[in-house]
Amino acid sequence: MAPLDVLIEDLVAANRILATENVVDAFGHVSVRHPENASRYLMSRAKAPDLVGRDDIMEFTLEGDPVEARGRKPYRERFIHGALYEARPDVQSVIHNHSRSVISFGVTGEKLRPVVHSCATIGEEVPVWDAQDTFGDTDLLISDMSMGRDFARVVGGGTCALMRGHGCSVVGTSIREAVYTAIYLEVNAELQWKASRFGKVKFLTPGEIEKINSRLGQAKSGEGYDRSWEYWCGRAGITLSKSSARMGF
Amino acid sequence: MAPLDVLIEDLVAANRILATENVVDAFGHVSVRHPENASRYLMSRAKAPDLVGRDDIMEFTLEGDPVEARGRKPYRERFIHGALYEARPDVQSVIHNHSRSVISFGVTGEKLRPVVHSCATIGEEVPVWDAQDTFGDTDLLISDMSMGRDFARVVGGGTCALMRGHGCSVVGTSIREAVYTAIYLEVNAELQWKASRFGKVKFLTPGEIEKINSRLGQAKSGEGYDRSWEYWCGRAGITLSKSSARMGF
Amino acid sequence: MAPLDVLIEDLVAANRILATENVVDAFGHVSVRHPENASRYLMSRAKAPDLVGRDDIMEFTLEGDPVEARGRKPYRERFIHGALYEARPDVQSVIHNHSRSVISFGVTGEKLRPVVHSCATIGEEVPVWDAQDTFGDTDLLISDMSMGRDFARVVGGGTCALMRGHGCSVVGTSIREAVYTAIYLEVNAELQWKASRFGKVKFLTPGEIEKINSRLGQAKSGEGYDRSWEYWCGRAGITLSKSSARMGF
Amino acid sequence: MAPLDVLIEDLVAANRILATENVVDAFGHVSVRHPENASRYLMSRAKAPDLVGRDDIMEFTLEGDPVEARGRKPYRERFIHGALYEARPDVQSVIHNHSRSVISFGVTGEKLRPVVHSCATIGEEVPVWDAQDTFGDTDLLISDMSMGRDFARVVGGGTCALMRGHGCSVVGTSIREAVYTAIYLEVNAELQWKASRFGKVKFLTPGEIEKINSRLGQAKSGEGYDRSWEYWCGRAGITLSKSSARMGF
Repeated sequence: MAPLDVLIEDLVAANRILATENVVDAFGHVSVRHPENASRYLMSRAKAPDLVGRDDIMEFTLEGDPVEARGRKPYRERFIHGALYEARPDVQSVIHNHSRSVISFGVTGEKLRPVVHSCATIGEEVPVWDAQDTFGDTDLLISDMSMGRDFARVVGGGTCALMRGHGCSVVGTSIREAVYTAIYLEVNAELQWKASRFGKVKFLTPGEIEKINSRLGQAKSGEGYDRSWEYWCGRAGITLSKSSARMGF
Repeated sequence: MAPLDVLIEDLVAANRILATENVVDAFGHVSVRHPENASRYLMSRAKAPDLVGRDDIMEFTLEGDPVEARGRKPYRERFIHGALYEARPDVQSVIHNHSRSVISFGVTGEKLRPVVHSCATIGEEVPVWDAQDTFGDTDLLISDMSMGRDFARVVGGGTCALMRGHGCSVVGTSIREAVYTAIYLEVNAELQWKASRFGKVKFLTPGEIEKINSRLGQAKSGEGYDRSWEYWCGRAGITLSKSSARMGF
Repeated sequence: MAPLDVLIEDLVAANRILATENVVDAFGHVSVRHPENASRYLMSRAKAPDLVGRDDIMEFTLEGDPVEARGRKPYRERFIHGALYEARPDVQSVIHNHSRSVISFGVTGEKLRPVVHSCATIGEEVPVWDAQDTFGDTDLLISDMSMGRDFARVVGGGTCALMRGHGCSVVGTSIREAVYTAIYLEVNAELQWKASRFGKVKFLTPGEIEKINSRLGQAKSGEGYDRSWEYWCGRAGITLSKSSARMGF
Repeated sequence: MAPLDVLIEDLVAANRILATENVVDAFGHVSVRHPENASRYLMSRAKAPDLVGRDDIMEFTLEGDPVEARGRKPYRERFIHGALYEARPDVQSVIHNHSRSVISFGVTGEKLRPVVHSCATIGEEVPVWDAQDTFGDTDLLISDMSMGRDFARVVGGGTCALMRGHGCSVVGTSIREAVYTAIYLEVNAELQWKASRFGKVKFLTPGEIEKINSRLGQAKSGEGYDRSWEYWCGRAGITLSKSSARMGF
């Protein structure tokens, strides 16, 4: 398979995995930057992620215009993706979702911080974006580039940000890294919520976070994100092609 | 298929979806107003929703009399449905259930209010009906039209109301809208319950609620309720006929 | 099928249902009084309920002696069952389990009381038995008739009791009623635990409890416990024989 | 089958069981001491436990060196296992995991203690190891023998210990006992967390713990850990060979 085909295979798998792990339900989406054209990205047409197939994958400009729509309707909130690819040349994949445990932290001011080593990729503290601050009463969806860019500003150089009354978005240097962070962001929110019953939580220290992420950044093929990817594929009933397994996108 | 057949197909699917999404268990029911006779509605005979098939669907007058029983026993609480269709000409579908997270709000006085955009259809604040207020000690079931009408008064012009020590009921302008609101009412209750651990919750503002519901009201076929319907059908193992998918009831 | 065969079929089904609904795990057991000999009861040999088949069903005297062991090892805690059949001629079925949500109420002194109408069969307040009170330090199992009788005294004329640091036991006038109460005892514990976050809970009144249980007591075949039984059989993948469905044991 | 083959069959089954019961996810591992050479242990290569097969099982020295790697990459944290086998001649199996409910107790100082009889094998109070105390900022993984030995010191003569910001580890005198304790350690954490809402919890007394563990220690084949093992195999879809079932490793 050509590299683009392998990447699309991973993108379809990511949709299924995020649904199986309850990160997305009928809503939410995942994209990948085009491997041959950095000013384009690939994402499904508007569809529940669990149902996405290869033919649903569309190509978009960073402004959110479909390159070849062929009657397929895009997600209304695709501007989250374009604005993040525009602001962050290092970002190769973006996920937007409304998973259950992150919501509490977006609507209360409670700071979301890493509780265990496997969640260190979320960073020291997850910022919160509130559409009210700049745009007043809206339908809360990021439905144009000005909102997308305002949100990207809050994500800054980090890996994720919460959206008040809405959900969160996550970026990664690969599909597998973004999927990892999206799943463990939700896990961390649940763990922190549970631990908070017993009073003051000892979070990871900045030094620990840095050491964990440094190790993950040096992982070889088959390590780190690849081990969890293989596990999640198994749970989602996905058999990856040999080329996808080998190339480790 | 004739429109009535398509509608019954959706009603059977709604039963299965509500069971799969844990909105109903052995108990709970969903109805739809008759498309050709506004003073009639369609609902299964007394049976766990997950087991309902086409032959279980009965026709009722708004007073709750079966048009053609053929030995089938109706739900005891069908008066919830008739009273709501009677009071609300705009309502085309009614759901009654006892899902787990809504119960807390019916028995404590804590106000149930929308936490995230996907739950905006529940309205600014969900009212609570207590059978004790008018009827004193009962078996808590709405088992005649006087109780049904008293409950419909509390629902008012809204989309749902809680029933103290019992559950809740939801209305919609279509089966798909009612199913959407019933599922996200339960989701919102769970989200609000979790967020409440961290103190004061910032709920959706009236302006945000209005903008979200206005957008949903303008959704075209395949958008809004249709996307989640397709997703829930997938999870429930339902393959809709082409006509049902096309007509978007 | 002979009545005894139908009853055994229901007993095997009850084992599977209780496992599917997470009332029992590897541990826990359900019995039924012998339909032709009130001083005998039927129960599986020591085995995880989910794995129980017809050949595992043994007959016991009320003292807990196997009538025909054929090498099968009985549950160590069978004395719970015998003592309850001995003390309560009205009881036809007994269940013992350690389901997750009831535990909190056995170890903290918080009173377990019915929150919603479907849980009214647990009674106004569930009593707690603590082996420490009479027997001091034990392994907490009810492993002889003196412990069983002490526990039966705490159950009194009710339908269930908690066991501190251990679990609970439930009785019914039929297998279906006992299964219903065991499942909804766990549901109620979960609902009350959740509702307790919001302060004072309005429980069912004594008058409501009485009216609900009176209605259930008058239910005809196919109503009340039979509707939920059919639902739980479906979830557990059980197809009942026609005679079992008809006889409504 | 030879005893070693039967043991490997149980080790593969343990991997699957721990995944099915949500004790491990993509991460976590289980090992067994070599039955013919007490200075060696057997464990899968680095792989999600749910996917482990016979060919993944490697042999290690207590120092963590693979005896015959054949290109297979070992778990980075294998030193947990070697250090515990080194310190504790009685230990035959070790499990390391990050299950969800134990985390709260490792990061808050809340003491984890047994709430119900089925969890008595965790001991009177579970100790907590914090890598910070001796090693300062690390990536939190136990990645050499000096960390492993420091952790083994905290486990002491007990059956388990928590690791702050990381997870926990469990030991047993057999695979089945270690699996039992790992699963019920997670169960107890969940039960204690829930019960804590209602104030002071009455934990098992030292006398009760001792009596329960004494009984488990005297269990014959088919009792105690064997009953739950059979149940968990059923849930994980595992059919044990006759020799494995008979030998009761």
